[in-house]
Amino acid sequence: MSPADPPGHDALHRPPNGPSPTPADWLLLCRTVRFGDTDAAGVMHFHQLLRWCHVAYEESLERFGVACGTIFPGPGRTPAVALPIVHVSADFLRPLVCGDPLAIELRPQQRDGGSFEIRYRFLHDGQEAATGLTRHVAIDAASRRRTDLPGSLVLWLEASRPDA
Amino acid sequence: MSPADPPGHDALHRPPNGPSPTPADWLLLCRTVRFGDTDAAGVMHFHQLLRWCHVAYEESLERFGVACGTIFPGPGRTPAVALPIVHVSADFLRPLVCGDPLAIELRPQQRDGGSFEIRYRFLHDGQEAATGLTRHVAIDAASRRRTDLPGSLVLWLEASRPDA
Amino acid sequence: MSPADPPGHDALHRPPNGPSPTPADWLLLCRTVRFGDTDAAGVMHFHQLLRWCHVAYEESLERFGVACGTIFPGPGRTPAVALPIVHVSADFLRPLVCGDPLAIELRPQQRDGGSFEIRYRFLHDGQEAATGLTRHVAIDAASRRRTDLPGSLVLWLEASRPDA
Amino acid sequence: MSPADPPGHDALHRPPNGPSPTPADWLLLCRTVRFGDTDAAGVMHFHQLLRWCHVAYEESLERFGVACGTIFPGPGRTPAVALPIVHVSADFLRPLVCGDPLAIELRPQQRDGGSFEIRYRFLHDGQEAATGLTRHVAIDAASRRRTDLPGSLVLWLEASRPDA
Repeated sequence: MSPADPPGHDALHRPPNGPSPTPADWLLLCRTVRFGDTDAAGVMHFHQLLRWCHVAYEESLERFGVACGTIFPGPGRTPAVALPIVHVSADFLRPLVCGDPLAIELRPQQRDGGSFEIRYRFLHDGQEAATGLTRHVAIDAASRRRTDLPGSLVLWLEASRPDA
Repeated sequence: MSPADPPGHDALHRPPNGPSPTPADWLLLCRTVRFGDTDAAGVMHFHQLLRWCHVAYEESLERFGVACGTIFPGPGRTPAVALPIVHVSADFLRPLVCGDPLAIELRPQQRDGGSFEIRYRFLHDGQEAATGLTRHVAIDAASRRRTDLPGSLVLWLEASRPDA
Repeated sequence: MSPADPPGHDALHRPPNGPSPTPADWLLLCRTVRFGDTDAAGVMHFHQLLRWCHVAYEESLERFGVACGTIFPGPGRTPAVALPIVHVSADFLRPLVCGDPLAIELRPQQRDGGSFEIRYRFLHDGQEAATGLTRHVAIDAASRRRTDLPGSLVLWLEASRPDA
Repeated sequence: MSPADPPGHDALHRPPNGPSPTPADWLLLCRTVRFGDTDAAGVMHFHQLLRWCHVAYEESLERFGVACGTIFPGPGRTPAVALPIVHVSADFLRPLVCGDPLAIELRPQQRDGGSFEIRYRFLHDGQEAATGLTRHVAIDAASRRRTDLPGSLVLWLEASRPDA
């Protein structure tokens, strides 16, 4: 199924015309290391990378056409399904300094009907500087019991498959 | 009125016995500058100070006997009155480095029936290193209209007055 | 003096050709409120705004053509002049929630030979949601004594004047 | 070797008298979840846990007697050996809300002459709420080549062994 034409999934807000999007449109992102991301060793402070992972995940959904408000809670809007992170990991391969431009590659993957994970690669100057992983499970927001992933997220996962 | 004996304010969870607390118990706090608070200039990154201010405000309420859950929202608990910050300022007088122990003095002050502010002084080695200010207003959590401060907060403000 | 043609200021890395930049190119920026910027009240946690201010300041310099490494320290690179923040303030006018797109207007202003300030307006949906202010002084990185602003920064300040 | 009597390791600043410290003094710490640690889902935002891990590591060293300035860089002080984090992971088992008091257990372990890791358990109300892991390597701060762990850190690792 093409993400440009997701019948019956009104959570996707893609413009109806224009060229068909390709996975790179929502799986290859950019950011720049900022001064507040560094510590007194002069380089990116390690836990900022995990913050970048979550921002990249949000931006990827947004670019694909999943509105933030359908996934993340806010005042007066509690999506029926919450997607808490249950596991993360990260590897730090090269120091990153203020001003470094980064390419971020996301590789989302469904694990089963109720969970998925995202692998992140952070590239600077053509070299892998860090990698990250976040694993999410779907829970019913009211009962906090495991449940199925929301449809719009499954669409994003399917469209993001390397063989899609 | 003594904070040790606040009749009719069951939001206060003070132990019934023990020596009477004095304002310094909840208005003079400590913290240490941590590595993640610094940036590549080697010193505290400026906006961390505002984070410290809020943590000090929470800790002060807690020490006075106001339970966090009665003031701050959480899953399944929305206090009727929210206390958003509408204004902040801070002055940075001396650089602070990782490991520096700080004394934090709070001076809360009621402005009117529906707002208050807190002034913070951060002292290191007997010298003022920074000051901060947060101004809060009471709003009805549902309508977001201005309302009166919660009783437990007024108690804290009154007990914190220099002439109390 | 036009920012497109700054003779003798090799800190500016503008491409030699292309249309002349206008102040809006580096003084009007965008960002989106992210989930990690919110707190349990469902809205942007106040001190994130100060972080956004600094990121906007960095991005503005970068867009104007001032390389990050000439202003901000990093491993093995300590600019002769440091520009610590000595004062900040912010006003919070409307709640901001995850996914809100923001326009950020910067108004930098030189105060004297050795200091400047930046005023920030955060607009959402055509309305002012918050404002911020950061005030910076130039100090000699070695002696920590007050000194003059670096030339590249003065160029940015001059080109950013409303009457420039 | 007892941490109370580390001959020839002047990086340790323990008071000469008083009762002998026991590992729990520096391996069992406390903190409270703060409002700024939460997100709009009402619970701790995941990457704050990694920040807590690093703060706990710093506090543990400090309590053991290793001065922060001998391990972490600051203005005008660059320890010869840097200890960057090369890998982290975390598991999130139960939601944590503002005001929750936590016990943090640290289990540091030397891996070889030039690296160590720390396992963290975060307990709330007698139950494991989250776990974390940070892995650090020793590098020469100038050449960034792998080197041996600093002596004061080795002392801390040895004194922290379960069989110490």
